[in-house]
Amino acid sequence: MTTPTASAISKSFYALIAGVGPGTGHAVALRFARAYPVVLLARKPESYEAIVADIRRRGGEALGVSADTSDAASLRSAMEFVRREFFAGKGEDGRGLGLAAAVYNVGAGFGVKPFLETTVDDIDASLASNARGLYNFAQATVPSLLESVPTSPHPPSLIITGATASVRGSARFGVFAAGKFAARALGQSLAREFGPQGVHVAHVVVDGVIDTPGTKGYAANDGKEDGKIRPDAIAESYWHLHTQHRSSFTHELDLRPFVEKF
Amino acid sequence: MTTPTASAISKSFYALIAGVGPGTGHAVALRFARAYPVVLLARKPESYEAIVADIRRRGGEALGVSADTSDAASLRSAMEFVRREFFAGKGEDGRGLGLAAAVYNVGAGFGVKPFLETTVDDIDASLASNARGLYNFAQATVPSLLESVPTSPHPPSLIITGATASVRGSARFGVFAAGKFAARALGQSLAREFGPQGVHVAHVVVDGVIDTPGTKGYAANDGKEDGKIRPDAIAESYWHLHTQHRSSFTHELDLRPFVEKF
Amino acid sequence: MTTPTASAISKSFYALIAGVGPGTGHAVALRFARAYPVVLLARKPESYEAIVADIRRRGGEALGVSADTSDAASLRSAMEFVRREFFAGKGEDGRGLGLAAAVYNVGAGFGVKPFLETTVDDIDASLASNARGLYNFAQATVPSLLESVPTSPHPPSLIITGATASVRGSARFGVFAAGKFAARALGQSLAREFGPQGVHVAHVVVDGVIDTPGTKGYAANDGKEDGKIRPDAIAESYWHLHTQHRSSFTHELDLRPFVEKF
Amino acid sequence: MTTPTASAISKSFYALIAGVGPGTGHAVALRFARAYPVVLLARKPESYEAIVADIRRRGGEALGVSADTSDAASLRSAMEFVRREFFAGKGEDGRGLGLAAAVYNVGAGFGVKPFLETTVDDIDASLASNARGLYNFAQATVPSLLESVPTSPHPPSLIITGATASVRGSARFGVFAAGKFAARALGQSLAREFGPQGVHVAHVVVDGVIDTPGTKGYAANDGKEDGKIRPDAIAESYWHLHTQHRSSFTHELDLRPFVEKF
Repeated sequence: MTTPTASAISKSFYALIAGVGPGTGHAVALRFARAYPVVLLARKPESYEAIVADIRRRGGEALGVSADTSDAASLRSAMEFVRREFFAGKGEDGRGLGLAAAVYNVGAGFGVKPFLETTVDDIDASLASNARGLYNFAQATVPSLLESVPTSPHPPSLIITGATASVRGSARFGVFAAGKFAARALGQSLAREFGPQGVHVAHVVVDGVIDTPGTKGYAANDGKEDGKIRPDAIAESYWHLHTQHRSSFTHELDLRPFVEKF
Repeated sequence: MTTPTASAISKSFYALIAGVGPGTGHAVALRFARAYPVVLLARKPESYEAIVADIRRRGGEALGVSADTSDAASLRSAMEFVRREFFAGKGEDGRGLGLAAAVYNVGAGFGVKPFLETTVDDIDASLASNARGLYNFAQATVPSLLESVPTSPHPPSLIITGATASVRGSARFGVFAAGKFAARALGQSLAREFGPQGVHVAHVVVDGVIDTPGTKGYAANDGKEDGKIRPDAIAESYWHLHTQHRSSFTHELDLRPFVEKF
Repeated sequence: MTTPTASAISKSFYALIAGVGPGTGHAVALRFARAYPVVLLARKPESYEAIVADIRRRGGEALGVSADTSDAASLRSAMEFVRREFFAGKGEDGRGLGLAAAVYNVGAGFGVKPFLETTVDDIDASLASNARGLYNFAQATVPSLLESVPTSPHPPSLIITGATASVRGSARFGVFAAGKFAARALGQSLAREFGPQGVHVAHVVVDGVIDTPGTKGYAANDGKEDGKIRPDAIAESYWHLHTQHRSSFTHELDLRPFVEKF
Repeated sequence: MTTPTASAISKSFYALIAGVGPGTGHAVALRFARAYPVVLLARKPESYEAIVADIRRRGGEALGVSADTSDAASLRSAMEFVRREFFAGKGEDGRGLGLAAAVYNVGAGFGVKPFLETTVDDIDASLASNARGLYNFAQATVPSLLESVPTSPHPPSLIITGATASVRGSARFGVFAAGKFAARALGQSLAREFGPQGVHVAHVVVDGVIDTPGTKGYAANDGKEDGKIRPDAIAESYWHLHTQHRSSFTHELDLRPFVEKF
């Protein structure tokens, strides 16, 4: 992983990543930190603390903030904190940093369970984290992304992490898929409404097991080498999406290991 | 519309339709009432009263019950009432009627609105009526449908009314589409889990304006004749789905006027 | 299977089915023969002779004609023969019968084979039978279907038999899928061009093994009862498509056994 | 556009691009020429001559060869010529260059025309260039791509240029869509068969008008700036696909202008 140099980091724009942990969130944060100061949102500080430290050690700028995206008030106060504490007097003109990229990587509720053993709390949790959370995140970020359109180095971007369950309701995955399908719907609609205003909204179907500390014990694809998705490979595709020219936006792409059945 | 004859109506099975009003719900109720006693669920009696009367006038059996499908407790108590009051002593063996078909036709939240003018209440309402409501309805009906598998005249069916927004997140339709996509996800998952056990779960993409009293003033497809979908035509397709042989289930079909752009 | 009564058979319209054999084609022919005289096209008489006899035995009218749909001239001369020999003086006014329904059920090239073991002849055969054949068939029938719009008892219909490979290019199925995808493309395009003129074009994804004499030895779905699709069940869905009201056309539906993985 | 430096160009691998002209083909060739010697295939020398000169002027290596991909023999002899004349003694070990990337960018037959005004030659041309041509190209390149798997700097790639008509059969576009759907089917199948062996097959849905000399007069998206797709932006996405880690392959992505309706 390249180390960012202070001179390469934007003085005018930042990136915001909701839902960070040891997998995709960490890798995406590192990738975007090579170009922007990054703000990391997670419900609990232990989710972002190591990543913030990692980014700073490499010479980047990072701030972790606790927030529950499924709770509009919690997210709003986190965003206010970020603007007041982190950005005061920043930006080339001292007016604060603009938002160049927002990544929604939250998504509780994964799980395979016979439908009749699930409860209404399960579906509510899936809808809250995947759909209402994205709704709140988009409400909180789209106005800032729109503001950045004229000056951002790349088209301001909202990137949404999806899953196999975003496009397929498999048996015993209904509760999770309900939330994931809903997030994809919202992403499509935002892409169509705000694309013509210059904001790039993209949805990524991550179709496979991600290689994280938490999945070490799980032998995806019969344990074949590279049978799990490398988080830094996901991050490269997110960065590619962010840097696409506005004449050539991708609105959806899939990512899966070369040995994955699909 | 054919009039049911008492002899044609099942003595052992009933159909349950959630979400009735002057359009699809009414027509589906009439169609299924030619073969089964029908129970109609709606939040308010004024939604089902005229339909119940219409069915009885034609010689069918119908019962309306007030329930809010997005509220698990409300739906549960409605179902208990139905079993206790309506079915006590019914059925060929006096053990009550079996459930042959359940139709989920609920779906508030339709509406086109700029994303930044919507509120979190809008998305919550869409998710509640389209997704959590279907979840509750499936929890309440799947066990009964499974019980009916060995004896039902046709494969016991759960039919879900979808819309254009079930498969496409159009600009300014995100809130509605989130709920509709989620319902489709749940439907796919239920189809894959319970199909092999003999229950037919089907999702119908109603892609067009339905010809109801409420849409009389709306000139769909430039006001062309049959430019709006006739509810009784929808009902015929639902009946076809219900009567499909289990070796040849349809899991999704689209319905739209011949002049509709798609 | 109901026996047609002479009085139920149309005196003004006929149905045309290309690609008949012991499975879908036979069943569809029988089903449509309950309402219309049917003309059966196949490359070899042995493909249609038994079906013609079967229909006549049940009191229906049928004519078999040899034609290769992938060869425009062969198809054209077959259609001329039909009009001259079979329809001369028929129709209520003696001007000939109108075409009420055309079913394209041809499709050679099925087969799973490693890509590098296939030859260009394989892909040419798949494209010829699935795509060029449908093209020729549509050229030969759409004008007649358009003519029937004002008078046909149901919206004149062009129904296309697809397969799993119409919507999914599985490994080692590429050659077959190329032809099937192409046919689906053509069907979508015809539906959008001729739907607004009153012709109903529908594509059916038959997703499973059909129960025919030829598949008797093949244990689909672990040999479970009804694990293969019954041809008469397919035929019922084709008939439903044909009889849909023009305010509510289905353009695509899937058909699969209740135990099929999908 | 960056100028390649001799040291950056591979001594062991080359890229092959079929279907070059002033738009996507030219831009993709330039992009891949920054890393590899490139071979350009086109039916006529005037299609590749300017591009070959352009690449050489920038310090890259390029060879143009005339071939008709829809003709297996023509393609085969072109490939033999390339190996014999261009690669003799090349490669680090003098055994010739390996194939790192193959791009299929051929596709005649675009055009919107009422179905009944098309001829069987139109559909044959579309199927030949889009489907049989890709088939021949894959037969000619997949064995070489497989050979390169162990040593290629990036997973050997086969990238296929699609269009809106690859996923949608619009009215009056059926002939073109038939070919494009068929190519997508073949691409999916190749991806599933050869992905697990290390070859990355990707299909790109180019959904919009490309900004080329030929489309200068055409005001796409009401003539808005960047309302046509920049070929070099397409090329960047192709390069991203080629350089994806094998644990995270994209099999399909869409590209369209920010103002495009979709």
